[in-house]
Amino acid sequence: MSYNLLEGKKGIIFGALDENSIAWQTALRVHQEGGSFVLTNAPVAMRMGAIQQLADQTNAQVIPADATSIEDLNKLIDESMEILGGKLDFVLHSIGMSVNVRKGRAYTDQNHDWTSKGWDVSAVSFHKLMQTLYKKDAMNEWGSIVALSYMAAQRVFPDYNDMADNKAYLESIARSFGYFFGRDKKVRVNTISQSPTPTTAGKGVKGFDGFISYAEKMSPLGNATALDCANYTVSLFSDLTKRVTLQNLYNDGGFSNMGVSDAVMDLFEQQQSE
Amino acid sequence: MSYNLLEGKKGIIFGALDENSIAWQTALRVHQEGGSFVLTNAPVAMRMGAIQQLADQTNAQVIPADATSIEDLNKLIDESMEILGGKLDFVLHSIGMSVNVRKGRAYTDQNHDWTSKGWDVSAVSFHKLMQTLYKKDAMNEWGSIVALSYMAAQRVFPDYNDMADNKAYLESIARSFGYFFGRDKKVRVNTISQSPTPTTAGKGVKGFDGFISYAEKMSPLGNATALDCANYTVSLFSDLTKRVTLQNLYNDGGFSNMGVSDAVMDLFEQQQSE
Amino acid sequence: MSYNLLEGKKGIIFGALDENSIAWQTALRVHQEGGSFVLTNAPVAMRMGAIQQLADQTNAQVIPADATSIEDLNKLIDESMEILGGKLDFVLHSIGMSVNVRKGRAYTDQNHDWTSKGWDVSAVSFHKLMQTLYKKDAMNEWGSIVALSYMAAQRVFPDYNDMADNKAYLESIARSFGYFFGRDKKVRVNTISQSPTPTTAGKGVKGFDGFISYAEKMSPLGNATALDCANYTVSLFSDLTKRVTLQNLYNDGGFSNMGVSDAVMDLFEQQQSE
Amino acid sequence: MSYNLLEGKKGIIFGALDENSIAWQTALRVHQEGGSFVLTNAPVAMRMGAIQQLADQTNAQVIPADATSIEDLNKLIDESMEILGGKLDFVLHSIGMSVNVRKGRAYTDQNHDWTSKGWDVSAVSFHKLMQTLYKKDAMNEWGSIVALSYMAAQRVFPDYNDMADNKAYLESIARSFGYFFGRDKKVRVNTISQSPTPTTAGKGVKGFDGFISYAEKMSPLGNATALDCANYTVSLFSDLTKRVTLQNLYNDGGFSNMGVSDAVMDLFEQQQSE
Repeated sequence: MSYNLLEGKKGIIFGALDENSIAWQTALRVHQEGGSFVLTNAPVAMRMGAIQQLADQTNAQVIPADATSIEDLNKLIDESMEILGGKLDFVLHSIGMSVNVRKGRAYTDQNHDWTSKGWDVSAVSFHKLMQTLYKKDAMNEWGSIVALSYMAAQRVFPDYNDMADNKAYLESIARSFGYFFGRDKKVRVNTISQSPTPTTAGKGVKGFDGFISYAEKMSPLGNATALDCANYTVSLFSDLTKRVTLQNLYNDGGFSNMGVSDAVMDLFEQQQSE
Repeated sequence: MSYNLLEGKKGIIFGALDENSIAWQTALRVHQEGGSFVLTNAPVAMRMGAIQQLADQTNAQVIPADATSIEDLNKLIDESMEILGGKLDFVLHSIGMSVNVRKGRAYTDQNHDWTSKGWDVSAVSFHKLMQTLYKKDAMNEWGSIVALSYMAAQRVFPDYNDMADNKAYLESIARSFGYFFGRDKKVRVNTISQSPTPTTAGKGVKGFDGFISYAEKMSPLGNATALDCANYTVSLFSDLTKRVTLQNLYNDGGFSNMGVSDAVMDLFEQQQSE
Repeated sequence: MSYNLLEGKKGIIFGALDENSIAWQTALRVHQEGGSFVLTNAPVAMRMGAIQQLADQTNAQVIPADATSIEDLNKLIDESMEILGGKLDFVLHSIGMSVNVRKGRAYTDQNHDWTSKGWDVSAVSFHKLMQTLYKKDAMNEWGSIVALSYMAAQRVFPDYNDMADNKAYLESIARSFGYFFGRDKKVRVNTISQSPTPTTAGKGVKGFDGFISYAEKMSPLGNATALDCANYTVSLFSDLTKRVTLQNLYNDGGFSNMGVSDAVMDLFEQQQSE
Repeated sequence: MSYNLLEGKKGIIFGALDENSIAWQTALRVHQEGGSFVLTNAPVAMRMGAIQQLADQTNAQVIPADATSIEDLNKLIDESMEILGGKLDFVLHSIGMSVNVRKGRAYTDQNHDWTSKGWDVSAVSFHKLMQTLYKKDAMNEWGSIVALSYMAAQRVFPDYNDMADNKAYLESIARSFGYFFGRDKKVRVNTISQSPTPTTAGKGVKGFDGFISYAEKMSPLGNATALDCANYTVSLFSDLTKRVTLQNLYNDGGFSNMGVSDAVMDLFEQQQSE
C-alpha cells in the first residue's frame, strides 16, 4: 500500500540489519510513502552487503555510526542533513543489545560491566541521539522521533533479562527528552512497544520460539509483525499524529491489556488435567 | 490533506452535534480520506439543520438513534449496512453526558438516578453498540471501533464529576469487548483520551475555560484540537494500525505523562511570591 | 498475631458472608488488633446464623443494610456511631455481584437490566456509602476507607464478565471521592486489588478453580489468601499509612506485574510439544 | 508509637545521612518496632559523627560501604549477618545521586560520564545489592526489600533531570529481581514512590522549595513526610504485607492520581486573571 503519507519528509533510520528487522520493513514502508532517509547501523553490526541492498531499493545512502558515540552521531546528523538537503522530519531508533543475554548470564548473576555496555547501547544511545539532534536544532517543527521498546519495561518476562531494565530506561528518556523537544522544538517523541518479533536479533534469545507462540495465543489479534510495526511507525511519522507525544504505544494485538486469554487457559487446564 | 487512507471503507459516526464537535471534524476528515458513512445522533440532541449540513458536505445519510436503546441500535445498524452496501469497517462512539454536571450537582451529593442515566448514555451505550454489532456480525475483519475518552478516567479532575467514573467504565468496556471482538471477528477496539476540547458540550462545564488554559500550559505540544483528534481517529481506522487494540491512546500534547511543566511552575511561583 | 494496631479505632465492615469471606477474616484480624466495629451485609445475603457467630467472636453488633439504599445506609451509619460511641475510623467495602455472571450470560450477550443491577450493587454502592459518610461527617480525621477490587479492572480475564467494568468504575470512585474526602475530611480512600480468592462467592464463577491455579503459578509469591488480605487491610486502617490515598494496591503475590512466569511457560511449552 | 511489629527482625538500612533523611527516620521507627539492624552509607557521604549518633540511639553498628562495589557489599552483608546473628529480614535502599543535577547540567546537555555515574549509584547499586544478597542466600523467607523512588519515573518533572530515568531503571530492577527473589527465596521486593521530601540531599535541587509547595497543594492529603515514609516502610517490613511484591507504592497524599486540584486551579486562575 502507499498513500504518500510522508511525501517530502526526510529522516534517519537506525538498526536495519536484514530483512527480518523491523527497521528494514520500516525503511521499505517509509520509502513507499514518499519519505527519503539515511540508513545507519553500528559498523560492527552492519553487514554491508545486506544494508546496501536495502539502500539500493529505497534510494538511500548508508552512513555507519556507533550510536553510543557523540562524535559519530554528530557526523551522522551533519551528513544526513547535507545529503537530504535540510532538517529532519523523522528518526527511528531501533537498537538493542544485552551482553548478559548474549553470553547466557542469568539476571541474578550479572556481570555489571556487561550490564553497563548493554545499557549504553540500548538506552543511553537514544538520549545521545536526541541530545545531538536537539543541540544541532536538526529537527523540523512537528517532526517525530520513535524508538522501539518492549512490554518487559512494565512486566516481568524472565528471559528478557537486563533488557527489561534497559527498555524501562529508554521509555523514561522518551518522556524526559520528549518534554524538552516538545516545548522547545515542537517535536514529538514516542516509543512503540512491539509484540515479540522474530528478528535475527530476537531469535537468539533463549526460549524465544515458545514465547512467540505464547504471545500469539494471549493476544486477541495475534502478534504484530515487523510489517505491522512499520505501518504503525509510518502513522507516527505522518501528520495524522501531531499531538501524540511522550507516549509508549503498544502494537501487540492486545497482549498488554490481557490478564489471560481463553486460548492460554485452555492449554493450561489441559496440561493441569494430565 | 487527503491520502485516500479510507478508500472503500464504510462506517457509522456517532455524536456530530455542530462544527465544534470532534465527531463533526472526524466526519469531514473521513470523507476526505475516501470513507463513506452514516451519521447518527440522539433524536433530542440532533439539531437536524446542523447535522444535515454535515451530511450534505460528506455525502452521508442521517439516521437518528438513541444509543441506549437496543432497538434503535438494531435499526441503525441494519439500515446503515443497507445504505452503505455491506458490513462496516469503522465506528466512532463520541457520546457523553452527565445529568449531575448539567444540573450543577456536586460529586459528593449526587442524585443517583442521574448518575445512572449518565452512565447509561456515556458508557453502557458503547457496550450496547458493540453487542449489537457483534451479534449481527456487522463488522468486516480488521475493522476498527473507536470511542472518545478523557484522562479523568485515570486521574482526578474535580469538576469532571461522575463523567470520570463513566469514562473509566467506558475504557473498561473497550478492553473487555475488545477481547471478544478481536478473538472472534478480528476487529480492533480502542479509546482515544483527548485533550480538553472546546466543544459545545464541553463549554458548558464549570471552569472549563480555565482548565483548557491550564492543560495548554501543562502540555509540551499544547492541547490537541478537534482536528488533531479527527486525524488520529483516521489513523486508527486505517490499515496502518491493524494490530493496535484494547488500548487507551492519549492525544493530548503530552499532558498525560507530565508531572508539572516549567510553564505551570512559573505561574505557580509567581503567584506564591505575591 | 496481634500488635494493637487498631486500638480505640471504630468502624463498619461490609460483606462478611461466611468464614471464607475476606471480610470475615478482616473482621477477625481487626478485632485482634483492638478495633471495634459493626458488621453489615445485605438482608438477602445474610445468613444470620453465620454472621452472628462472627459477631459473637468479635464482640460486634450486626445491622442488616442494602448498600444500594441511601435510606439503609443512613440508618446503618447513624446506628453504628451510636453503638460505637462516636465517629468512625475505618470502613471496609467488600461487595460484588453480577447477575450476568450468576445466570451464565456471556459478556457479548448481556441483559443490560442485569448489568445495571450488578453495577449498582458492586460499584455505585461504594459511592452511596461514601456520600452518606461524607454528608453525615461520620469519619474521624485520618480515617481510612478500603474497598476490594480485582485486576480485571485493568486487564482482560474473559470469565470475569461485567464485573471487570464494575471494578473499573469502583476504582474510579475511590479516586474521585478520595479527592474530596482527603481535601475536606483528611480521610484516605484506597482499593485493594486482591488475588483470586476461593470465597463462597468466587467459587461459583465458571472456570474459577483453573484460574486460581493459573494465578498461583503466575505469581512469584503465590496467591494472596483471605488472611493476607485481612492483614493488608489492617495495615491500611492503621496509622502506618496515613498519607496513602487514591491508590489501587495489588495484594497478589506479584501477578499484576508479571508478563509470564517460568512456571507458566514450562507448562505451555510441554503442552505445545505434545 | 510502637507496636512491636518488627520484633526479632534483622536488617540493613542504607542512606541515613542526617535527621532529615528518610532512612534516618526509618531507622528510628524500625528500632521502636523492635527491629535490629546495621546502618550503612557511602564512606564519602558518611558524616561519621551524625550517623554514629543515630547508631547510638538505635543500638546499631555502622559499616561504611560503597553500594556500587560488589566487594564492599559482600563485606557488608557478611559482617551484618555476623553482627545480627543470622539471615536478614529487611533491607532499605535509600540511595540516589545525579552528578548532572549537582553540577547544574541541563537534561538536554548531559555529560554522559556523569549520567553513567549517577545511574550506577542510584539504580544499579540496587541490583548489585540484591544480587549479593541472593547469591549469599542472605535473606530469610518472607523477608522484605524496599527501595525509595519518585514519581518522575512515570511523569515528567523537568528539574528532576536524569534522576527520572534512574528511578525508572530502579523500579524496573525491583520488578525484575523481585520475580527471582520471590520465586526462589520467598522474599518480596517493592519500591515506595514518596512525596518530594525536604531532605538535605533534596534541598540542593533547583526550584525544590517551590516544588514542595506545589506538590502540597496538589495532594488531597498534603505531602507525605519522612516520618510517614518511615511508617509505610515499617508496614512493608512487617508480616502484614507478605504477598505484596513487585509493586511501586505511592506514599504521596494522593498526588500520583491527581490531574489537578482545586487549590492549584484557583492559584492558576488568579494568576491568569491578573
